[in-house]
Amino acid sequence: MAQKPSIPKGTRDFSPIEMAKRNYIFNTIKDVYALYGFQQIETPAMENLSTLMGKYGEEGDKLLFKILNSGDFMHGMTGEEVANTSTLKLASKFCEKGLRYDLTVPFARFVVQHREELTLPFKRYQIQPVWRADRPQKGRYREFYQCDADVVGSESLLNEVELMQIVDTVFTRFGVRVCIKINNRKILTGIAEMIGQADKIVDITVAIDKLDKIGLDAVNAELAADGIPADAIEKLQPIINLSGTNAEKLQTMRSVLKDSEIGLKGVDECEYILSKLTDLNNAIELDLTLARGLNYYTGAIFEVKALDVQIGSITGGGRYDNLTGIFGMPGLSGVGISFGADRIFDVLNQLDLYPKEAVNATQLLFVNFGESEADYCLPILAKARKAGIRSEIYPDSVKMKKQMSYANAKQIPYVAIVGESEMAEGKVNLKNMITGEQQMLTPDELVAAIC
Amino acid sequence: MAQKPSIPKGTRDFSPIEMAKRNYIFNTIKDVYALYGFQQIETPAMENLSTLMGKYGEEGDKLLFKILNSGDFMHGMTGEEVANTSTLKLASKFCEKGLRYDLTVPFARFVVQHREELTLPFKRYQIQPVWRADRPQKGRYREFYQCDADVVGSESLLNEVELMQIVDTVFTRFGVRVCIKINNRKILTGIAEMIGQADKIVDITVAIDKLDKIGLDAVNAELAADGIPADAIEKLQPIINLSGTNAEKLQTMRSVLKDSEIGLKGVDECEYILSKLTDLNNAIELDLTLARGLNYYTGAIFEVKALDVQIGSITGGGRYDNLTGIFGMPGLSGVGISFGADRIFDVLNQLDLYPKEAVNATQLLFVNFGESEADYCLPILAKARKAGIRSEIYPDSVKMKKQMSYANAKQIPYVAIVGESEMAEGKVNLKNMITGEQQMLTPDELVAAIC
Repeated sequence: MAQKPSIPKGTRDFSPIEMAKRNYIFNTIKDVYALYGFQQIETPAMENLSTLMGKYGEEGDKLLFKILNSGDFMHGMTGEEVANTSTLKLASKFCEKGLRYDLTVPFARFVVQHREELTLPFKRYQIQPVWRADRPQKGRYREFYQCDADVVGSESLLNEVELMQIVDTVFTRFGVRVCIKINNRKILTGIAEMIGQADKIVDITVAIDKLDKIGLDAVNAELAADGIPADAIEKLQPIINLSGTNAEKLQTMRSVLKDSEIGLKGVDECEYILSKLTDLNNAIELDLTLARGLNYYTGAIFEVKALDVQIGSITGGGRYDNLTGIFGMPGLSGVGISFGADRIFDVLNQLDLYPKEAVNATQLLFVNFGESEADYCLPILAKARKAGIRSEIYPDSVKMKKQMSYANAKQIPYVAIVGESEMAEGKVNLKNMITGEQQMLTPDELVAAIC
Repeated sequence: MAQKPSIPKGTRDFSPIEMAKRNYIFNTIKDVYALYGFQQIETPAMENLSTLMGKYGEEGDKLLFKILNSGDFMHGMTGEEVANTSTLKLASKFCEKGLRYDLTVPFARFVVQHREELTLPFKRYQIQPVWRADRPQKGRYREFYQCDADVVGSESLLNEVELMQIVDTVFTRFGVRVCIKINNRKILTGIAEMIGQADKIVDITVAIDKLDKIGLDAVNAELAADGIPADAIEKLQPIINLSGTNAEKLQTMRSVLKDSEIGLKGVDECEYILSKLTDLNNAIELDLTLARGLNYYTGAIFEVKALDVQIGSITGGGRYDNLTGIFGMPGLSGVGISFGADRIFDVLNQLDLYPKEAVNATQLLFVNFGESEADYCLPILAKARKAGIRSEIYPDSVKMKKQMSYANAKQIPYVAIVGESEMAEGKVNLKNMITGEQQMLTPDELVAAIC
């Protein structure tokens, strides 16, 4: 036999059971998005490279999959010209299109391109694969799905509130206990302003984040090593030691940031959002060390951690101003979240939380003992399907053992066995594959037994 | 403002309403596939070019989208080497991966790669986009979805029967009247054998297909012009004039093909399939001019035509032997169908057959008159969502007119208006946007009115 075929590294095939689980995840998220008035869009896998380049930093440009132009991609270049051109420039000459790298830039492009047709605020969700030429490693793929929801064209904090409700509802439906962490870029800017160290805010959050692990003295030593002056470290003490309820934390921050207009704005925003989220099923916690996407987000920042599984953030998002400015349509504020489907898949697997009915495929298999038995079964099979029972008949009349292995492999819970005696009686022998129990039933009784 | 961004030619964005319609199509097909015991798989967008090349003919190879290797795709080639290498060879040097061109070859690759994990017969369905560097034109795209179901590892004609039942069920659910046409490659081979013109079978079917339009004499003239000898044309007369019920046609064919073993096998197969399909909602018709995928199919051939819209075939398929032979796993027979999602989309649009509930998004919008009104609405909004009503609150407190335009643009059927008097009474003013009717309701009454 020839060498087994394979797929490109970093990509995956999804088997029926994996697909069923993934569909359960996507459908749950979709249902909740729709419940909150978000509408689905899709954009093409390929975008013009001019749309994608320069949007993800220099490193991101290198991670774009580029598509070779069809036909004469060399444009009649001579060998000499090729030899004298850099690889990166040649790539731009040979390729006009690339695969999308995320859903955010295509969404911004979509909003600008279709602005005449859209009514703002525009609440869209999008669940599609993205591609990155990252080095593949455990849990990092070159093709993976993103599940984003964003609102553009509204600065109201009610959007932030609803996104947190969506997160809470989705994980409640999954049965996963989570902690929702929120922060605000404006608070971080306020802190940096207050201590006169605007460029050190990432170092500061990284150091503060270690408090539990290394203790206060070590955190202060790290801040000093980062070049933060002693008086600034002094001013940071109430922030490093920040604890208590969200209300207590906000009170402390309000007093620490009393001279920073933007800092107080951030405190106000957090307070408003938290005040509307008093009846969530999951905990929501103000966490100043949350600094995700700091170059990107301008207001609220969110992150979700699973409580019962050791894994990184499983959902994240925040508010960004001027998303569409890169495409010449300035002044549109947006806020969004993104569920990490691959990590949620792992979490649900580890906690064994997939509902049986979500992953069950065929419910009923008719064993096939030959043409006359099959002929007897076909109208009953049709009746079962009409009642909505996912059913099949084994297509070939082969050994019983093979047919039962098939039922086991597909985890089919019911098998209908029809031989001469069943045909004579006008009945079906229904075997419950889990209990082993068998019953002689009329076709109507069979349908009723499974429905 | 900068130039409007755009997408590559031949690709499409899908708006919320288009997505809702497409989801209705895909979900209907998925539900029916699952009802018949088919299970979903997905394969990566990118396959190794070694998997794809040579599978679609020379023309197909040219239509593959190839992905430039990351990093130094030039492999240190000198300008001279580049200048001395053909564009096609360079493309193979610069690219290891390509975008999938259909779902059939990736499926064959999947079956061979995962053969140890699969239980045969394997009934899979797959709904994913494919990409072809075809010249874009009306109705032909460079990115489009295919919706395939195939059974591999079973030669039983019950599979053909069930695929036709699936077709019948899907179009019944859509409300589209269709004619299902079936043919059999073995019959065509028998005809060619009988008249000693094996290589002329396509010419023959093309000519016969024109009977209604140009008449018998012109058909015979065309056959002669194609180089078919007079005695062969004479033998073809009963086939050209084939008419009547399926049973009558089969009887004629059985007598015409009495000396061709393979031809009679084809007649037997058609007879068996038709005998099991007596209670379809749609007509099924033996059509000898059906010659789709003739180099590919080895048994049954199917095609579906819409009766009430002028459009090409909207579904097709057939049996092929040895699908996985190209990947070194011979002897596996398969049979499959493929729904043409783009054409079905057009048909349902033209006949206006989308059910309202399938394309309706948000059901209820709360108008936002300010913070205290919004605060009053939020728990009612939560109650509505808990009851499964897709609801939103307009996030910003802007002019009523703007909020009502939003409701109209999103075709939201109910708007809840809450001002001071409603708050005082503990009620909500619910406006039916279609009838214009308004009612003062308690929150519970509001939920009941919409559910």
